[in-house]
Amino acid sequence: MSSHDSLARLAAVIESRKPANGGDPATSYVSRLLHKGPDSFLKKIGEEATEVVMAAKDVDHGADKSKIVYEVADLWFHTMVALAHYGLTPADVVAELERREGTSGIEEKALRKVAERAAEEGTP
Amino acid sequence: MSSHDSLARLAAVIESRKPANGGDPATSYVSRLLHKGPDSFLKKIGEEATEVVMAAKDVDHGADKSKIVYEVADLWFHTMVALAHYGLTPADVVAELERREGTSGIEEKALRKVAERAAEEGTP
Amino acid sequence: MSSHDSLARLAAVIESRKPANGGDPATSYVSRLLHKGPDSFLKKIGEEATEVVMAAKDVDHGADKSKIVYEVADLWFHTMVALAHYGLTPADVVAELERREGTSGIEEKALRKVAERAAEEGTP
Amino acid sequence: MSSHDSLARLAAVIESRKPANGGDPATSYVSRLLHKGPDSFLKKIGEEATEVVMAAKDVDHGADKSKIVYEVADLWFHTMVALAHYGLTPADVVAELERREGTSGIEEKALRKVAERAAEEGTP
Repeated sequence: MSSHDSLARLAAVIESRKPANGGDPATSYVSRLLHKGPDSFLKKIGEEATEVVMAAKDVDHGADKSKIVYEVADLWFHTMVALAHYGLTPADVVAELERREGTSGIEEKALRKVAERAAEEGTP
Repeated sequence: MSSHDSLARLAAVIESRKPANGGDPATSYVSRLLHKGPDSFLKKIGEEATEVVMAAKDVDHGADKSKIVYEVADLWFHTMVALAHYGLTPADVVAELERREGTSGIEEKALRKVAERAAEEGTP
Repeated sequence: MSSHDSLARLAAVIESRKPANGGDPATSYVSRLLHKGPDSFLKKIGEEATEVVMAAKDVDHGADKSKIVYEVADLWFHTMVALAHYGLTPADVVAELERREGTSGIEEKALRKVAERAAEEGTP
Repeated sequence: MSSHDSLARLAAVIESRKPANGGDPATSYVSRLLHKGPDSFLKKIGEEATEVVMAAKDVDHGADKSKIVYEVADLWFHTMVALAHYGLTPADVVAELERREGTSGIEEKALRKVAERAAEEGTP
């Protein structure tokens, strides 16, 4: 099964867990996050990003690389819950990544953003 | 083009930017991140996760939803740079998400983790 | 000089850097952050928190402990810029920490919060 | 009571919660964090930093400023647990902040760091 199918199917599962779609906060973790609202999953995004960083540092010092995969999966998963809440999908994100690559090159795009920030922050 | 192709192709572009593969830190943002090593992109993951949270809060108060798409794209992009550094791919992450869904259900997996944490942290 | 004097004096320096108080974004980093508004220093809080975590992991693996001190100083400093923007001071934060200790005990306070979260997140 | 006394006293309370000093993980939240080790409080630092950002955004849109004070207190508190684990104190952090101010000016220090980063990240 392709990544596309997997992400789209996972997004569909999350969508079905919305209380408005019949998801039950009493039995579903995702329904509970969506029922409690943005703060519940936004704070998870901050926490899971930190766990990705911790996992990477552990791998730098000998831990198994699967630890990174596991934590990135957690991060992407909670990001997808946020996307669902806002009526967005992983396909929107992938399209944005594609757009950057197609229109102006990933490099150019990233460099332009960095250059702008450097200009904003730099000494006079 | 499917998300799968897009993520795989983006991962291939990042892979080609590794200094060992001929990427030039003088002209490529990704090469520079990879050349500087983990700290450079790990701190970006923390920063971009924060920007996702800020964008979501802005959207809660009227900003355009595209802001979330843009910031999640930044977060996923820097996560993919980290994956590349550690010899991993988006497909590994998607496989992990699939495995959770297939083996025991996304819900069960997430609930089990939450329950473990509650047990660890809870009052006696 | 006591910590109190130091934090209060640092807060006063930050206060004086507000553009409304004559701070010049062209020459002062703090004035620039305050001039650009919340997003500029809020994203720094996310980034610096990540750097604290990275420093701690490095110390776990042999780096000098001063690295943690340095990164926590960066984190607290940017937190103080945020406090100044919102008309708050380190003394407000210290008073809150004191209040928790005095009224109900740090432990009780923290445990109550954890217990509430566990109840919210826990399985049915 | 001065901030100095408060932070020093809070640090002493945290110190007393170390399992090696008789703290009991079964009854004390701080003892439990310290007993479980760095990952437990490092992930809290990432989470609490995110909550500071969320609180600030809420205040931007009308919430009471006390929310920021509350979340910064949580962030500083968990930072102090980390400091204690590594044998460091808030006084070390304050001394670092003081050193920057005394030696070269807060501004110079911060600007130098930003300039270095811009040079590292900028386009050639």
